[in-house]
This record gives sequence, C-alpha cells and structure tokens, in this order.
Amino acid sequence: MDVEAVIAEVLPRIRPTDEERAFVEGLMEELKIIAEETIEGMGLDAKPYFVGSLAKDTYLAGDHDADLFLAFPLDVPLEELRETGLKLGRAIAERLDSYEVAYAEHPYVRASYRGVSVDLVPCYDVKSWRDVKTAVDRSILHTGWVLENLNGRNDEVRLLKRFLKGINAYGSEIHVRGFSGYLAEILIIEHGSFLEVLGKADFMLRRKIIDPGNWLKREYEIAMKTVRREIDADRPLIVMDPVDPRRNVAANLGWERYGVFYFKVREFMEEPSVRFFFPERPKAGNYLAELRRKGTHLVTLLFDAPGMIDDLLIPQLERSARGFERALSREGFRVLGWDVGRKGKAFIMLELDRRERERVVIKPGPEFFTVNGRDFYRKNGRVWLKGKRLFAEKAVKENVVDVIAELLEKNGVALGKNLRASVRNADVLLDYVPKELEDEAYIFVSREKWNLKG
Amino acid sequence: MDVEAVIAEVLPRIRPTDEERAFVEGLMEELKIIAEETIEGMGLDAKPYFVGSLAKDTYLAGDHDADLFLAFPLDVPLEELRETGLKLGRAIAERLDSYEVAYAEHPYVRASYRGVSVDLVPCYDVKSWRDVKTAVDRSILHTGWVLENLNGRNDEVRLLKRFLKGINAYGSEIHVRGFSGYLAEILIIEHGSFLEVLGKADFMLRRKIIDPGNWLKREYEIAMKTVRREIDADRPLIVMDPVDPRRNVAANLGWERYGVFYFKVREFMEEPSVRFFFPERPKAGNYLAELRRKGTHLVTLLFDAPGMIDDLLIPQLERSARGFERALSREGFRVLGWDVGRKGKAFIMLELDRRERERVVIKPGPEFFTVNGRDFYRKNGRVWLKGKRLFAEKAVKENVVDVIAELLEKNGVALGKNLRASVRNADVLLDYVPKELEDEAYIFVSREKWNLKG
Repeated sequence: MDVEAVIAEVLPRIRPTDEERAFVEGLMEELKIIAEETIEGMGLDAKPYFVGSLAKDTYLAGDHDADLFLAFPLDVPLEELRETGLKLGRAIAERLDSYEVAYAEHPYVRASYRGVSVDLVPCYDVKSWRDVKTAVDRSILHTGWVLENLNGRNDEVRLLKRFLKGINAYGSEIHVRGFSGYLAEILIIEHGSFLEVLGKADFMLRRKIIDPGNWLKREYEIAMKTVRREIDADRPLIVMDPVDPRRNVAANLGWERYGVFYFKVREFMEEPSVRFFFPERPKAGNYLAELRRKGTHLVTLLFDAPGMIDDLLIPQLERSARGFERALSREGFRVLGWDVGRKGKAFIMLELDRRERERVVIKPGPEFFTVNGRDFYRKNGRVWLKGKRLFAEKAVKENVVDVIAELLEKNGVALGKNLRASVRNADVLLDYVPKELEDEAYIFVSREKWNLKG
Repeated sequence: MDVEAVIAEVLPRIRPTDEERAFVEGLMEELKIIAEETIEGMGLDAKPYFVGSLAKDTYLAGDHDADLFLAFPLDVPLEELRETGLKLGRAIAERLDSYEVAYAEHPYVRASYRGVSVDLVPCYDVKSWRDVKTAVDRSILHTGWVLENLNGRNDEVRLLKRFLKGINAYGSEIHVRGFSGYLAEILIIEHGSFLEVLGKADFMLRRKIIDPGNWLKREYEIAMKTVRREIDADRPLIVMDPVDPRRNVAANLGWERYGVFYFKVREFMEEPSVRFFFPERPKAGNYLAELRRKGTHLVTLLFDAPGMIDDLLIPQLERSARGFERALSREGFRVLGWDVGRKGKAFIMLELDRRERERVVIKPGPEFFTVNGRDFYRKNGRVWLKGKRLFAEKAVKENVVDVIAELLEKNGVALGKNLRASVRNADVLLDYVPKELEDEAYIFVSREKWNLKG
C-alpha cells in the first residue's frame, strides 16, 4: 500500500463530516450566545473567545471538546479575575447540562453540553505577548495566528495529529511529554504538509530551530536568550512560539516521544500502513507468565491519590518510584524498571530481580586498633578482620515487602512531597495486582508499554 | 583464675620433660654423627648445623621437628650447591627411616627418623648478612643470635609460642601471615617475658620499630631504607632482623593475625584462662543449616592442585577467588565471602547472595538518532527509550553454575597463572560439598574460621 492510498483511507475517518461540522458550529454559536447573555446579565466587562482545535477547525472527527475562554481586560487584578472568572464560568455552566470545578494554575469550570465537554477558562484579553500574565493567556493569540497562517491545510494537521496519536506521541501533558496540537499545527504551517513534516523528522532533530514568527530578526536579544536556555535544557526541538519569543513550543517534548516519532516515521515511510494512524491495541498478555519468563518479580504500591490532577500527581509518582529504585538497590534489590499511573487508585510498580535477599548482610566496621574498633568488637557477635578493618554479620529482613515497610518507617525513601502520607499507607502487593491493573502490569513487565516496535 | 595460676598450669604441658629432652638430645647427636660420616664418606667440604627450635631449645613439648642444615663454603656455585646439597641430603636420609624430596626455593630432603621429621636443607655457611645468598642462609645466624641472647628465658618463648598457636596467630607461612617462632623469640628477648610482651601488644602497634641489633646506629643507611620500605608496605610491625639490617622479621605478619593477637591479649588480661593456650576446637556445625540460617548459597570449585607447595598454591587460589568475586558481581551475584585451601584437592568456596538471577537483563544501547542506534533498533526485539538512549532485553543464563561455566569458557575470570587449566576443569558444586570439606564449609559460612571471638 503506498502513502497516498493510506492517506486516502485515513482522511475520511478523521475529517469531520458535514453533519458533524454543522453540529459543532451550531454548538459554538449557542455557547457564544449563552456566554454573552450571561456576561451582560452580570454586567461584566469580558469577552468570550473560542480557542483550541474547534476554533481552529483542526479537531479530529468525533473528538470535539470545546474551549471557551472568558477574556477580561488587562487592568483587572489577578485575584478578581480568578474569582469573577470562576463565578462567570459557573453562571454560564448553570445553563448547560452539568459541570464541575477543575484546578490547574487557576480554577476553571469543566461543563458538559449536548455530550460535548466544554471548558470555561478565565483569562486576560491580551493583544501581544508583552501582556501575557497567566499560562492560558496565549491561547487566544495561538488561535489567531493559526487561523491567519493555516491557509486551508487543516486536513494536513488532522493527519499529523492522528499519526502522532496512533504512535502514542501526542499530548504535551507533563506525564506524556509528546507533541501538542499547536506544535503539530506549526509544523504543518512551517513545512507545508503532513508528508513534508515526516520527511523532516531526522532533519528537524539536528538542532534545527524553527522560528515561524521570525523572532531571531524581530527580537534578537530575547529570542537568543530563549534559544540558549532551551539548548542548555537539551530539548530535542526548539520551536519559537510565533506569538511569544520567550517560549519554546516544544519545551515539553521529551526525547522518548521524539524517538518514537523518529522511528515510526522511518517505518511508515518504508511500509506505509493505516495501522500507524489506527493501531490495534497492544494484545494484552498474562503478566504472571511474563514474570516467570523473565525470572523477575513485581512489587506494586497501591494508594489513594490525594485530589491532584495528573499533571501534578504523575511527576510525584515518578519521583517516588526513583526514590524506591535508589533505596532498594542500597538494600541489595535491583530495580529493573518501574511504572506509575492512576487507575482509580494511584500505583507505583517496581520490577525487581528477586523477592527475597539473604537474611544476613556483612557489616563493615572501623579499624580494629581504634576505640570504635573495640566497641564494634564488643557489640557484635561473630567478628572478623579483613586487613585492619573489622566486619560482622547483621541480620536483615529478607522479603522485599518487609524491607519496603521498614524503609518507609525509617523515612528511607525519597517520595514526592504530597505523597508521603499516602505512600506510607499504601498496600504493597508482591507478584499480584488487582484485576483492573492486570493489563497495565503486563505492558509494563513486557515493556510493550514503551516498546518502539509495538 | 589469675595469670600466674594459668601460667603455672600451662608450663608443665609445654615444657619438655627430662625424658623428652634426653631423647631429643640423643637424636640430634645421632643425626650429627650420621651427617658428618656421610659428608666425610662423600669427601665433601660441608658442615652440619642444627637450626630452628630444637637447636635453640625453644620447641614445645611433643613438637620437635629437626632442621639439619648442610652448610657449604661460600665459593661453591649455587648450581653445585643445589645438586650436591640434594645428593648429600639423600645420602644422609638413606640412613634414616624414610624420606621424600620437597621443593621450596631449593629442593631439600624431608626425612623421618624415630618418629621425628628431619629436614635436610643445603645452604651456605655464612658468617654475616653480607654473605647471605639464599633465603635459608640466615637460619644459622638466627640460631646463633638467639642462643647468645636468650639467657634462659626459653620457657617464656614457649609460653608465647603456645599462646600464639592457641589463638591461631602462629606461623609465618604466606597463607597464615602470623608470628614466626623467630619473631616470638625476639619479642621475648626484647621485652623480657611473656607477660611483658602481652603488655606491649597495643604499644608495639603504634608503629614501634624494634631494633635489637641496633642497626639504626650501626648501619643507618641500609636500616632506614628497610624501615621506609616496610612503612610504605604498611606492616603492623617493623622488627629489624638483628642479623640482617635489610630484613623486617615481621614482614609476613598480616593485620588479620596481629588483630587476633591484639584482641586475644586484651581478653586474656581481663580473664586469664588456659583455653587461650589450649582452645577447644571450634565445635563443628552443619554448613547446610548455616546456609539456610543466612539465606545464602555456597559454590565450591574442586580441582587437582598441580604439584605446588601451599606457599605457592594458596596465594594463587586467593587471587582466583578474588577474580570470581569481581566477575560474578558483574553478572549480578554478590559474593559475601570466599575461602580457599587444599584438602586433597584444592578448593575455592564462594558464598553468594543467591543461586539464580533473573533470566533477562536490560541491555543499554546507543543514542537513538545515531547509525548505531538504528542498528540496535533493528537487531533487538523489544526496544525502548530512556531519554535519548535505547534499551533492550537480553536473555542470560540463570543458574550460577551455568554462569560460572560461561565465564570460564570466555576467560572472564582472572585466575592465578598456574591454576588456569585446572580451574577450568574444576567440579563446580552448589550448596553441597564432599564429606571431607563439610567442616571447612561450616567454619567458612559461619565465619567461625575468622571469628575473633571463636
């Protein structure tokens, strides 16, 4: 199957139909009216803007969450923006089907209307990067820039986004570290088409700086500062945000996700196939059989995640997993790998080289002819010398579950700061996971989760 | 029990009776005559000298091996000395009960006569350290010096030697690294008595240089060279040989044996007891029970030792054991300790933290965007990324016996040079040793072998 044929087959599946398009436009129109009425009713000075893929018409068929930003004048104090913005969001949401308050940098309202999720996000009505005060303020500028520059290549964006989703490299959340939708749009605008972007996968990596906003001419000082900063941070890509010279759009793109993109592009070019866009889910397997095959063991910590969004939780789970890796290796267990996440409860999985260590470790002491040497000699049972140094046996807990309990008791593990309490009360499971984690356990232990060839 | 009482009880057990003394003197007289007659019969220009504890009357009751040295004039070439000396030794031994030829720096004859082992050792008839040509030449000078200086403190030497034997710190062989008889004699001569020497155990260690021959006055240059060399070598003691300023009598004394002496002296002073001189043998135990208690495993390599004396064999066994320690730890096994020796066959015992490792290890690869990266990706099955680096699984042998076989095949272990062939053909036993090694296995695994409190 050649590339064109594949694309011809993929396109109709990702391009919204006229019906869907009509529905979405109708929905946006309604929401706009509701928002404007509510603003007026509350006597507020705010403007509703649609941002994100709906506003840019780069959304994938069937995937049309709405982002309605409520922009306040720059002179409104931040505190007031947060309060009034949230109040306004609530008021609008009252007229929709249902809603809840979600927390990011600021609280915002996540509502649902006619089966569509609608985020109502307060922000400032910025006209330039110099006005930007909060993380979300740029979205309006991003939307504007894309609309100006995309010139009808919307389907190219859809192809790239679907490809990135298919190979599991899409999403700029900190725990994904993949390509954001905005980055995909910029790459299309920059290189012209989906296939052009794929053709550049290798070339982009050679520390190519993409600067569609021409900042390196227009704002040399600031732009160079950004470039230097991002080079020091060793990012795979530097894509100057066309609406803000201080920002690398690819700042959250990790080497892992870029690497996936890198290899998948190669494979796709060699053997084009629809499966890159629509992979069959990795066939689940039996994690216990996998553990037997590898001769390894699986320790799983299960605990209630405090009310944190994944963007905050996941990094702390990762920090904690690394903490266990270090602490357990000091105790004589080798951690071959770890995996974290949330499936109802939060979990940390550790793959170990063994479940039990020897019951006795050899404890080195001081040199024998010192005062400490004499104490060590007195305090210990069997004592012997290697050269000048005294040694003795120390009885230790054998089973990894006991060792972990002991480590947590003694604060012997570096944990994510909001997780300390909950990890200490975690259930520690050995070579067993509850039903809902069996698939996760399999793709972790088998490494299918990260398998580039998966 | 106070010290005097203990000594009073020990002395009669270590001092030869008049009968034994008479027997020994008679024996020496006979041997002297046999030697002289043989020398005359062969028309040789050589003199027989008795050296060692018999000659010095510092032997312990019941422990009277004879050292009869056959001293040749200095002008005899070394080659001739070896040949003629051996011939003479044989001729003398012919008139004794039985004999064999033993190999040290030079071949010599080990004969047996009236139940006493008699070493017939060719050497040069040296009058001064400047004449010394072979390692054994000094013995005649040592004997002379001790006879001149001991002044009837023979029993004090016997007490010290018996004490050192009792605490297992006696013997200067390279695989013991304890106190030699000559060192014990010098210490008595220097400090006056057994108890005086014990009183100095700590003090001697503070880098005290003992120089009974006054070399630091008489031969400052040479003596200081010796002192510096021995300080660099970090010896526990420096005892200038009263008959040779180039030699530290304590050069073969290791920190381990000195440490044993150090602690046992303390204990003896606090609670004097006969058991320091005549310990009850460490009660044997079951090595398998000990392995279960510790949760460890024992690997034993058994092989025929090439015809080497222990002084050559043991150091090479030790080197080989350290080689296995390094190689196995690279393979993921921790070696908690090792033991070597010869009981019929030579053996290397390794105590390990486990008998089986995981069947799969994680193999780090190159960075993904390199040519090597693409090869690594192609060549391996499941491949994943951490940062820029590729990783893959590698199947490995699981059981330590297989791992050792593989290591030896690939010359992956640093072995003593004369042992390579034999170790490669060794029997490798896991958690099992033949009957004759069961006690050794127990005192090793339990560390009773080195237990200072044993």
